Amino acid sequence: MIIRNFQGILISLILTFISCRGFSQDSDSVMIRKIFDQELLHGQCYRNLNELCSRIGPRLTGSPQAGKAVIWAKELMESYGFDSVYLQPVMVPRWIRGESEKAYILSDGKPNLLNVTALGNSIGTGIGGIRAKLAEVQSLEELDSLGVEKILGRIVFFNGRMDPTLISAGQAYGKAGVQRNRGPAKAARFGAKGVIVRSMTNLVDDYPHTGATAYEDGVPRIPAIAISTLDAGELSRELKRDPGLDFYFETHCQMLEDVLSYNVIGEIRGHEFPGEIIAVGGHLDSWDLAQGAHDDGAGCMQAIEVLRLLKDIGYRSKRTLRAVMFMNEENGLRGGLKYAQNALEKNEIHIAAIESDNGGFTPKGFGIDAADEKIEKIRGWAPLFKSYLIYDIAKGGGGADIRPLKNAGVPVIGLRVDEHRYFKYHHSALDTFDAVDQRELELGAAAMTALVYLLDQHGL
Amino acid sequence: MIIRNFQGILISLILTFISCRGFSQDSDSVMIRKIFDQELLHGQCYRNLNELCSRIGPRLTGSPQAGKAVIWAKELMESYGFDSVYLQPVMVPRWIRGESEKAYILSDGKPNLLNVTALGNSIGTGIGGIRAKLAEVQSLEELDSLGVEKILGRIVFFNGRMDPTLISAGQAYGKAGVQRNRGPAKAARFGAKGVIVRSMTNLVDDYPHTGATAYEDGVPRIPAIAISTLDAGELSRELKRDPGLDFYFETHCQMLEDVLSYNVIGEIRGHEFPGEIIAVGGHLDSWDLAQGAHDDGAGCMQAIEVLRLLKDIGYRSKRTLRAVMFMNEENGLRGGLKYAQNALEKNEIHIAAIESDNGGFTPKGFGIDAADEKIEKIRGWAPLFKSYLIYDIAKGGGGADIRPLKNAGVPVIGLRVDEHRYFKYHHSALDTFDAVDQRELELGAAAMTALVYLLDQHGL
Repeated sequence: MIIRNFQGILISLILTFISCRGFSQDSDSVMIRKIFDQELLHGQCYRNLNELCSRIGPRLTGSPQAGKAVIWAKELMESYGFDSVYLQPVMVPRWIRGESEKAYILSDGKPNLLNVTALGNSIGTGIGGIRAKLAEVQSLEELDSLGVEKILGRIVFFNGRMDPTLISAGQAYGKAGVQRNRGPAKAARFGAKGVIVRSMTNLVDDYPHTGATAYEDGVPRIPAIAISTLDAGELSRELKRDPGLDFYFETHCQMLEDVLSYNVIGEIRGHEFPGEIIAVGGHLDSWDLAQGAHDDGAGCMQAIEVLRLLKDIGYRSKRTLRAVMFMNEENGLRGGLKYAQNALEKNEIHIAAIESDNGGFTPKGFGIDAADEKIEKIRGWAPLFKSYLIYDIAKGGGGADIRPLKNAGVPVIGLRVDEHRYFKYHHSALDTFDAVDQRELELGAAAMTALVYLLDQHGL
Repeated sequence: MIIRNFQGILISLILTFISCRGFSQDSDSVMIRKIFDQELLHGQCYRNLNELCSRIGPRLTGSPQAGKAVIWAKELMESYGFDSVYLQPVMVPRWIRGESEKAYILSDGKPNLLNVTALGNSIGTGIGGIRAKLAEVQSLEELDSLGVEKILGRIVFFNGRMDPTLISAGQAYGKAGVQRNRGPAKAARFGAKGVIVRSMTNLVDDYPHTGATAYEDGVPRIPAIAISTLDAGELSRELKRDPGLDFYFETHCQMLEDVLSYNVIGEIRGHEFPGEIIAVGGHLDSWDLAQGAHDDGAGCMQAIEVLRLLKDIGYRSKRTLRAVMFMNEENGLRGGLKYAQNALEKNEIHIAAIESDNGGFTPKGFGIDAADEKIEKIRGWAPLFKSYLIYDIAKGGGGADIRPLKNAGVPVIGLRVDEHRYFKYHHSALDTFDAVDQRELELGAAAMTALVYLLDQHGL
C-alpha cells in the first residue's frame, strides 16, 4: 500500500509536470520541425560554402584572400537583410609560407625526398636549409628524458601518433597535438636545430598536415615542419636501420608585421530583450594548403545560416542574434580575443555563445561549458532533438574562438559532430569542398538553429 | 517518512541488482574494450575491402566477377584458419546489361542526350529502342489516378524524389523506391511502353542509380531505366514547356538462364553449445556500375572481421559463429532464401542473425526484429556500448538477406549506421573504395564483434 500510494503521488506529479510544460514543448517541437524542414528543402549553406571555397579558397590570416573573404561574408549577410552587418577591426599576425619547401633523408649518400609543410608561425631555414642528425621521440615526456646531451645540435623528430583506440578523435588530437604546438619550443630549450612533427591525422597517408606552433619568450626560435604519416613511418624505420643518417630541410616561411583585419558580424536585433545576445560563429581564416572547407568554412556558413533560416521562416527573435566570423583562429586567436574584449568593454550581455569548428559532419549533440544548472536546462531540451538523431548533450565543449568569452563568464557551447573523418582533412591539402556532404552540413546548421531558437525563447 | 522508506527500498534493490550484475558487466566491458582496441590498432577489414574492390570490382550476380569474389572470399577465410569454410550452392538469376545504353529528349527536333542506366532485371528495348510521349507522375498513387487513357502507349516518368525532410534516409528511400521496384509492372498494366525512374538519391547530381525492378506475372514486361536527379529535374521542366515532346531510349539488357553460384560461409565451432548458431553477414554480389564498396563489400568484410577478430584476441566461443556472404541480394535474394531453407531443412538453431548492409559508415546502433523480451535483453547491454558512441539500440531492423530467417522465427539484427551519405553512392558509379573511411568501417566491425561476443556469452 505504501508503494502504491507513492506511485500514485509520483504519477500525479509527473502528469502535472507534463501538462505545465505541454504547450511550450509542443510549440517548440513544431518550430524545430519547421527549422529542419526548411533547411533540408531550401538550405543555402552548402551553396555558400561552395562559393567561399571555389571563389576565394585558402584564407590564411592576413592574406589577400582572407581580406576577400571578409568582404564576401559581409556582402553575403547584407544580401540576407540582417538588421546590421559590420566589421570589427583587429590587428592580426601575418605569417607567410614562402616558396619551395623541401626535405630529404640522407642515408648511404642517397637523398630520399619527402612531402613537407612548414608549421604555422614557424621561422624558415632560409636558403641552405638545415642539415643534422635526428633524435626521434614519441612525446614531450620522452624529449625531457633525453635531455640536452642527446638533443643538442640535432633535429628532433616527434613521431607520437594520434591514438586510434581513443574513440574521440578530438581527444586523440589533443593528446598528440601538443608535440606540434609546444614541441619546437621545448626542443629548442635543449639546443635542437629544428623540429619535424608527424602529421596529426589518424590515417596513414601521404599528405602533410600543418598547424600552429607556439614559440616561447627567451627560447631560440627554431624551424619546424610536418611530414606525412606515411613518411613518418618510413623515416622511423630508416632511423632504426641507420641511426646516424642526416636529415635536410629547407623552408622560407616568415612572420611579418601585424596587419589590420576584421571579425565579420551580422546581427538580428531582439524585439523583447535586445540587450541579451546569443552569438553563433565559426572562424573565417583557414590554413593555406586547401580551401578550409571543413575547417572552418563549414562552421561560418552554418552560423550565417542560423540567422538566415530564422528570418526565412518569419521568426521574430526576443533576443539579439549574432553570427560572428572570427578571424585568426588558426595561428593567433586574435579575433576571438578582440571580440571578447570588445564585449567586456561595452558591457554586452551574452547569454550564450555557440561555435561550430569540428567540421561540417553529421551533428550528434552539443558540448556545454557553463554552470551546472544551465547545462541541465539545455539537457532538458534533449527530447526535442531526439528525432533528429541528436542525442549527445553534455558537459564539456565550446570552441577556441569563444574561449575568451567563456573566461569572461559566458556559457559556451560547441556543436558536436561525427568527427571520425575530420583529421583526414584537417589542416591538409584534402580540406576541400568536395569533402563536405550537403545533408550533413545542413543537418548541423538546422541543429544549431534549433538550439538558438530554444535559447532565444527560454533564455539561459 | 513514507517516501524516505520507499527510497531506501529502492536504493537497496538497485544496489543488489548492480552487485549481482557487477562481475559480468565488468568482464564484458573489458572484453569489448579489447575488441575495439584490437580492431582500431590492427584491423584488416579495410585492407580486405580494398582488395575486393580493386582486384575484383563489380560483382553482379552470375557474372564472372561474382564467381571470382566467391573464390576470393573463401580463400580469405581459409587463410584466417576458421574451423570450416564452405560454399553453399544456389541457382541465381543471370541478368546482363549489354552494351550502349542511351536516352534522349526530342523537343523542337533537337536530341538532348541524358545519362542513363537500365534498371536491374529489366528487359532491353533492343536495337531501334523505344520512342514515345511521356506521362510524368510523382508516385504510384498518381499513376493510378491517371489510368489507362493517359498512360496507354506512353513512357511513364516516375519523378517522385526521396523526401529530404525525412531524417532517416533509409525511410525516404523506402518510400520513393517503390516507384523503381513496382512502377514498371504497374505502368505496364495501363499499357505503358516503357518506364523512366528518377534516381534514388537525396542529392542533385549527374549519376544515374540503378536497382532492381520486379515484374509481375500476367503483365507485359516493359523496359525500364533510371536517369540522374539532375536530368530528372531538367526533363520535368522541359515537359512543362513542351508536354508533347518525345523521349527515346535504347537498352540491351536481358535476363538469361539461371546459373549456379554460392553463398560463402566461414565457421568457428562453439565449444559449449555448438548447435546454437550466431550468423553475421553481408551480401557479396553488387551492382555492375561500380565496386560495390559500401553496398555491400563493407558488410561482407565486417562479417569476416567479426570471426577473425574474436579468433585474433584468443576468444573461444561458446556457440558456433558463422560469417555468411550471401549471393544475389540485389536482384533476387536467392542466397538469403537458400540459406534459410537450408537452415530449416537441417533443423539448425540460429539464436540470432546480424547483417550489415547500410554502408560502411559510423555505427550508431542496432535495429532488432525479435520478441520483445529478446529486444529488451539486448537493450540491457546498451551501457556497454555507450563509450563507443553507439546509442541507438531499438526495435526494427534486420537486412534483406536475413529476412527469410526472420520469417522462420530467428531474431534478426541490422547494424544501424550514420547513413546520411549512403544514397550518394548507392547503386551508382560512385560506390567505390575511396568513398569508405577506414575508421568508420573498423568501428562498425568492432561494434558487430562486440554484439556477437555478448550474444555468445549470454545467449538470447
